[in-house]
Amino acid sequence: MPLLRFDVTSSDWVIFAPERARRPHEFRRTFCPGQETAPQAGPCPFCPGNEWMTGKEIYAVRDNSPGQAASWRVRVVPNKFPALRIEEDPRRIEEGRIFYWMGGCGAHEVIIETPQHDVPLARQSVQQIELVLQTLQLRFNDLMRDARFQQIVIFKNHGERAGTSLRHPHWQLIATPVVPRLLRLKHQVATDYFDQTGRCLYCDLLDEELEAGQRIIANNDAYVALAPYASHVPFEIWILPRYHQASFGSVEPERLRPLAELLKVVLGKLYTALEDPDFNLTINTVPRGDEWKPYFLWHIQIIPRLMMPAGFELGSGMSINLMLPEQAAAYLRDQEIPQ
Amino acid sequence: MPLLRFDVTSSDWVIFAPERARRPHEFRRTFCPGQETAPQAGPCPFCPGNEWMTGKEIYAVRDNSPGQAASWRVRVVPNKFPALRIEEDPRRIEEGRIFYWMGGCGAHEVIIETPQHDVPLARQSVQQIELVLQTLQLRFNDLMRDARFQQIVIFKNHGERAGTSLRHPHWQLIATPVVPRLLRLKHQVATDYFDQTGRCLYCDLLDEELEAGQRIIANNDAYVALAPYASHVPFEIWILPRYHQASFGSVEPERLRPLAELLKVVLGKLYTALEDPDFNLTINTVPRGDEWKPYFLWHIQIIPRLMMPAGFELGSGMSINLMLPEQAAAYLRDQEIPQ
Repeated sequence: MPLLRFDVTSSDWVIFAPERARRPHEFRRTFCPGQETAPQAGPCPFCPGNEWMTGKEIYAVRDNSPGQAASWRVRVVPNKFPALRIEEDPRRIEEGRIFYWMGGCGAHEVIIETPQHDVPLARQSVQQIELVLQTLQLRFNDLMRDARFQQIVIFKNHGERAGTSLRHPHWQLIATPVVPRLLRLKHQVATDYFDQTGRCLYCDLLDEELEAGQRIIANNDAYVALAPYASHVPFEIWILPRYHQASFGSVEPERLRPLAELLKVVLGKLYTALEDPDFNLTINTVPRGDEWKPYFLWHIQIIPRLMMPAGFELGSGMSINLMLPEQAAAYLRDQEIPQ
Repeated sequence: MPLLRFDVTSSDWVIFAPERARRPHEFRRTFCPGQETAPQAGPCPFCPGNEWMTGKEIYAVRDNSPGQAASWRVRVVPNKFPALRIEEDPRRIEEGRIFYWMGGCGAHEVIIETPQHDVPLARQSVQQIELVLQTLQLRFNDLMRDARFQQIVIFKNHGERAGTSLRHPHWQLIATPVVPRLLRLKHQVATDYFDQTGRCLYCDLLDEELEAGQRIIANNDAYVALAPYASHVPFEIWILPRYHQASFGSVEPERLRPLAELLKVVLGKLYTALEDPDFNLTINTVPRGDEWKPYFLWHIQIIPRLMMPAGFELGSGMSINLMLPEQAAAYLRDQEIPQ
């Protein structure tokens, strides 16, 4: 069963999911990095016709044509090797004098974003991307009804270097019983800024970037895509709403379409610029209870996996970036979008 | 020239080293991950006879045999693509209303740990490892004389998945003009613990681990190697001193030998257990001015690169570990050490 242990040195929780594990010797080199599950052999569990291979369906969007049982367009299923499970108990248990653990309480879902095995998000229709965003928001808001979950992390791993061996396009969603330390830190920084200035740090940051202009990649009436001033990796991209909104769960239905449009533009430019690079995408949003706070803007963060963090980055937490965001933004602005 | 930019959302500095960079299109897949410099072709710059390929030698340990000019045993040279340089100015410069940057002030050195191209640290003699540790400490203390440097990060990248393409065994040392946020956080957590309990968190953690016993991998009179209770990755290993000491710079000369002995044992077990896995190694130590504080124990951290962090880890900062440290420690305890 999964569990969490508290790291007393960093004040953060670590998730242990030993059920997903190999035996010790199986961690040798023969195990390829970037595989979040066993290497894919045989039929794809996310393809139409193989629905029996996943766990019980949590949600699906289906076409209304009668007699076409399998014609789903988006499908949500439990992760086969869940990092956290709703059955576990999040009460803390002391172990010895300074250690604490708790049951691996949470949820771990997979959002199969299309029936098509080989069409990455960048090449899907705006309508399909909108459907995926609607589904993510629906699952987000549904899981938030469980008051034990403090934070929901929505993410997508694209490509082996981004930590997935499953090629069929999908997202994941993990609900955690604690607020991760990194997010607490970001929210604290934004709260301090608000306390001092009376303004939202992210709104100010967006205004500043719009005024400077040189790091803007694309935008529309509702959203702006930019390479942030202090990008941690080459081609890091953020998409922020132009209006103040702290939680992804609160985005109005009519504002998911322009988000899908801009996301398609940005991912398309990235696809062309770097020839379908591996990347991670996450949706940054506030923890439970902060949904209406004036200090944070939810946003999408895209992290291309072009470099390998090494000892300095792991030891210090600091990033070394080989490319200025002005250069990345200029290069991306010039790119065409694939059809 | 390198520079640093302040990330206002995380309160951390990002190093930009665009001189090391490629042009935008060169970040495409053809560029292999894990290469901190250009792919190695031609002669190895760290091998005896090729000393002309590195920059001006900063330090070396040589055998005293006359007439053998090239018979160095350890050699320190500047990094050919430095992340930070001593010539830069660390004064902060405001850019617009909320952004800050400064010159990439610091130092970036490479410690060539042996003349032998193909002998990893785990298979070197205790005497040679001791020499490396002496050299690291000497460079650490020498660089700390520059009052602009707030923190020194000592690290080693072993293998391509750990971020190096240079096979010849080496360490690196980066002096930074700021204290990285992650280290500030750890020191703050330890300071709070000290304020509450009057004790060093790391000393208490070590006592607790020694009493539990099941996560201890190896130890001697002066040091203990263990798999920490809340290990972030499979086979994470810490080596801590048995006596209170905050700074690696303060280790007494006679205590470097037992450190070399235990490091050889631990790396040897890891080498056998996982067939020479790729790993990063860092020395965690206090920032400038905290050398004699009672709240921190300097320690070595070894992070095998067996898994690829994915979207959840990048988006939340939380780790998902597939193996309990008790299991890792038991497996490592049983391993032989290679000759």
